Amino acid sequence: MTSPSPSPSPDFALAVHVDYPAWVADVVAWETRYRTDEERMRLAIALSRENVERGTGGPFGAAIFERDSGRLVAVGMNSVVRLHNCTLHGEMVAFMMAQRRLGSFTLNAPHLPAHELVTSCEPCAMCLGATLWSGVRRLVFGATREDAAKLEFDEGPVFPESYRYLEARGIEIVRGMLHEEAAAVLERYRALNGAIYNG
Amino acid sequence: MTSPSPSPSPDFALAVHVDYPAWVADVVAWETRYRTDEERMRLAIALSRENVERGTGGPFGAAIFERDSGRLVAVGMNSVVRLHNCTLHGEMVAFMMAQRRLGSFTLNAPHLPAHELVTSCEPCAMCLGATLWSGVRRLVFGATREDAAKLEFDEGPVFPESYRYLEARGIEIVRGMLHEEAAAVLERYRALNGAIYNG
Repeated sequence: MTSPSPSPSPDFALAVHVDYPAWVADVVAWETRYRTDEERMRLAIALSRENVERGTGGPFGAAIFERDSGRLVAVGMNSVVRLHNCTLHGEMVAFMMAQRRLGSFTLNAPHLPAHELVTSCEPCAMCLGATLWSGVRRLVFGATREDAAKLEFDEGPVFPESYRYLEARGIEIVRGMLHEEAAAVLERYRALNGAIYNG
Repeated sequence: MTSPSPSPSPDFALAVHVDYPAWVADVVAWETRYRTDEERMRLAIALSRENVERGTGGPFGAAIFERDSGRLVAVGMNSVVRLHNCTLHGEMVAFMMAQRRLGSFTLNAPHLPAHELVTSCEPCAMCLGATLWSGVRRLVFGATREDAAKLEFDEGPVFPESYRYLEARGIEIVRGMLHEEAAAVLERYRALNGAIYNG
């Protein structure tokens, strides 16, 4: 009788709701065209930093752009603790929101322009898998697995051949974009003793 | 002007809502105790089959149980096409719903009993990564990567060392449970010319 068990018959209205923290409306310039990799990465890093400073999650931010026009489609920020959901890494939130906005389960649909994911830190195993399913044609990241590991964030089973698997399916990978700025947010999170939420 | 672009300024109420198809209320016996691996896998396979027969998604079902008591915590079914969201594989829906129900981003929280994932088919790279973050202590699957590949479902960058990575972190892996019954649902989906929704 001491272990908290789920109620015997769950509410069939059980549903998961994923939203943005309120600060997104203040921080994100939706109408800007993000022309360069650096401009795009600065947005991803700003999202990671705001998430830390506002106390809404881990030090990870991401954004989906139209690759050629630089139009911003969706942003994401780590929301694992805020929404009690282990799947809500920054990249996953960005994929979900982009697909919700475009009404398509793939960003590689024939009627859509090419899309890319720009993320402040190297994707974990889950997010790298989702990158393949998302339909983005390009992945750009800033901080690395090794930077995340300094905080004891586990990135899961990702190997050199994992990246080769994506590349063989036409996804371009760009590593270490604005690495120092991106890694500084991880260090800031560590200095604040932020929660480490591996399973 | 011909490419459908996102509106310049998205609704900040943009949110993703994940729910079950209506048939779950009719099909799932929530109060049953699922004592054996076979009983648990039969539920996962039934979910995969219903998802195909009712036309609500791909041939993949999953469930989260308390490992020792057999209490059912949450179910999941592939919802990629139904909800326009590449991340909503059956396992991901099950993790999200279980964590929503328990109000915890990990099923391995100190106050919780041990949990396990039972899934009708071998997890893809995304779902295997999420298995690590979910906090389940055991993973049981039925059909295999090779069965899924016959339908041209790509399982992504999963390697033998991916499983060793999970096992090294204390997750027990059980393969091929009720393999023939599980694979039969994949074959049924193929016979119906069901959508294949890789990115």
